[in-house]
Amino acid sequence: MSGREFFTTRTVAEALAGFRPAHRTPVEEVALPAALHRVPAADILSPQALPGFPRSTVDGYAVRAADTYGASEGLPSYLDLLGAVRMGAAPAVPVRPGGCVAMPTGGVIPDGADAVVMVEYTAETMPGTIEVTRPVAPGGGIVRADDDVAAGAALVPGGRPLRAPDLGLLAAAGVVSVPVHARPRVTIISTGDEVVPPGTAELAAGQVRDATASALAGLVIEAGGDPVVAGIVPDEPGALKDRLAEVLPESDLVVVSAGSSVGARDETAGAVAAVGSVWCHGLAIKPGKPTLLAECGAVPVIGLPGNPLSALVVFGQIGIQLLWRIGGCDKPPARPNVRARLSRDLASAAGRLDVIQVKVVDGVAEPLFGPSALLSVLTRADGYVVIPEPATGLDAGVEVDVTLYS
Amino acid sequence: MSGREFFTTRTVAEALAGFRPAHRTPVEEVALPAALHRVPAADILSPQALPGFPRSTVDGYAVRAADTYGASEGLPSYLDLLGAVRMGAAPAVPVRPGGCVAMPTGGVIPDGADAVVMVEYTAETMPGTIEVTRPVAPGGGIVRADDDVAAGAALVPGGRPLRAPDLGLLAAAGVVSVPVHARPRVTIISTGDEVVPPGTAELAAGQVRDATASALAGLVIEAGGDPVVAGIVPDEPGALKDRLAEVLPESDLVVVSAGSSVGARDETAGAVAAVGSVWCHGLAIKPGKPTLLAECGAVPVIGLPGNPLSALVVFGQIGIQLLWRIGGCDKPPARPNVRARLSRDLASAAGRLDVIQVKVVDGVAEPLFGPSALLSVLTRADGYVVIPEPATGLDAGVEVDVTLYS
Repeated sequence: MSGREFFTTRTVAEALAGFRPAHRTPVEEVALPAALHRVPAADILSPQALPGFPRSTVDGYAVRAADTYGASEGLPSYLDLLGAVRMGAAPAVPVRPGGCVAMPTGGVIPDGADAVVMVEYTAETMPGTIEVTRPVAPGGGIVRADDDVAAGAALVPGGRPLRAPDLGLLAAAGVVSVPVHARPRVTIISTGDEVVPPGTAELAAGQVRDATASALAGLVIEAGGDPVVAGIVPDEPGALKDRLAEVLPESDLVVVSAGSSVGARDETAGAVAAVGSVWCHGLAIKPGKPTLLAECGAVPVIGLPGNPLSALVVFGQIGIQLLWRIGGCDKPPARPNVRARLSRDLASAAGRLDVIQVKVVDGVAEPLFGPSALLSVLTRADGYVVIPEPATGLDAGVEVDVTLYS
Repeated sequence: MSGREFFTTRTVAEALAGFRPAHRTPVEEVALPAALHRVPAADILSPQALPGFPRSTVDGYAVRAADTYGASEGLPSYLDLLGAVRMGAAPAVPVRPGGCVAMPTGGVIPDGADAVVMVEYTAETMPGTIEVTRPVAPGGGIVRADDDVAAGAALVPGGRPLRAPDLGLLAAAGVVSVPVHARPRVTIISTGDEVVPPGTAELAAGQVRDATASALAGLVIEAGGDPVVAGIVPDEPGALKDRLAEVLPESDLVVVSAGSSVGARDETAGAVAAVGSVWCHGLAIKPGKPTLLAECGAVPVIGLPGNPLSALVVFGQIGIQLLWRIGGCDKPPARPNVRARLSRDLASAAGRLDVIQVKVVDGVAEPLFGPSALLSVLTRADGYVVIPEPATGLDAGVEVDVTLYS
């Protein structure tokens, strides 16, 4: 039980910039209704122009704009009503000089017309004759056949999770399935002789139920991954190494939550080093220093601290970014956030990133302290404040950005 | 084709405050791994205290604090090493005065001990004797059996979607299934003779594929609902009324996207009025004025504008709030947002809420204009700016809150 030094300690900024495994999930085709928040591997191009035909944006009359020049309340233009366009149908008649055709919003512009005058500026003074009291410019009241999207242009960009409105544009273009990155399979391994499954009704002395795996699974889902909770490995020499070798071939990312004792942490580091290459062991973050980052073959492995709060903080800062990238997204979606005034001074060490859980009440962020062994801090917190590496603290009263839990 | 007035027009603020149907989904039991973002119907109480036993927060030695009083580098305390606690096991020996027991982080505090001194302030100078060079106060290095959660106390509150860390705390307490509100079933009906399904490969003149239903389904999923895309109803007298009557019994919320012509809008209003009670017809929002809110029996119905962009804006301002509430959540999760400076003046009318799509580049919010008939605006936008009802516009250069899409 020695005060063992961490080796190759890195800052969070260094880890985000430098630990960038090349591994990406393969591309698969999914149907549009299942594509929400999935990440297209490349720009999705429109097979055709949208809307695909010149379309009226107003209720009114399709006209030749020149026929309305100079029209006013005092000196209206009078046009012959030649017919009406029905929704979803081709126009039956063209517009000839001196004529007009009644148009619903969204109807097809008839040949010969180059504008639609709004119904508000017209009156049918005699049956078959439309009085126009305002001029309309050529193109007025019309979207052209390719105004929304040109044929072959990108409907949505690659590398960005699909949003709800994107699904609408894809549907409009007739794209009913999309090639997207497979959800990264994230294997979650817990370790520790004291750790038992959540379903354990009665605990023996010293036992704790596995909290970290359930919480990590939730974070993985939020970041577009597919969690595989792989159970609890006992603190036996070789057990973790064997389990790692077993799960690596079926994983895109492996997360190991270490036991909380120094011995258990050493065991994790040894097991990971035996099957891959350790990038750093020790991260300048509080809480969460005993973190390990490694690559085992193509697959990144994160060794998290045994303390659940620390583990979730580190996964939030490092793992989520990594997970999005493995899933083909280099710019993860923004998180909900709010500005608030800090209720008290917060100290930090230069070169270390601090993550402080806070409650936000009436625009004031109140830090929640207590032993980091307590899990309930995370459920009582509304979010967290980050003190970045260069800062040595934050003063009471300053405005801070609170990243909110959701 | 008359310039028909909207009746009972309301502001968005009035609708959010006043249109509050009492309908809530029933409660169902779901397993913990499936409970992410689900809404507990009531506080979930802990069946037992957590951690459930007094636990060490450090690696070190369990002691009687009094035995370390006055200890220093120059004048250490010397304690007999009586044994070691193993992770996940009951302590084998108590701590008697003048003695100590080796402790891993997370181990059970032995009887007789009231503190744990950190290993950093100790040395085993002789086999069986521990030198302590700093005093520790009673309770130091220990979390008590109920420090995290007391037996019977709330683990997580009712009415708030479960977050990833909540799942961890529930797992720690042995709660492996939770009573949550059922996901609201949201039936999405499209109308319009011009509207055809997204899978239609070749469009006839004037036809458009249904964009709104796919995008709405995505928004519904994001707000915790279960979308049921119920297809396209033609503009035939009675057709929509019949379809409404059919779907209402299996729905928690019905959304109708109207055809885009005035006639189609009137048809929607008539059909809804025939099966329920209209709360407002016309909303002071741009885009999105031709919106209808109604209650049909217990089930709220939203009639959305035919224009897809307007429909999505209105559903984002009104429908999402309603949907969360039906699903048991009165305080929907916050959305990501960013502050940015407006690149140009924006005009608005007092008493109307305006929603403006923007791109954000280097801290500058650039409004995206163009006919509201264009869908691609939503995929090009990074988010939107709201001009609230009292304002008559925003000046170029002011700092605005941009709600970001995700």
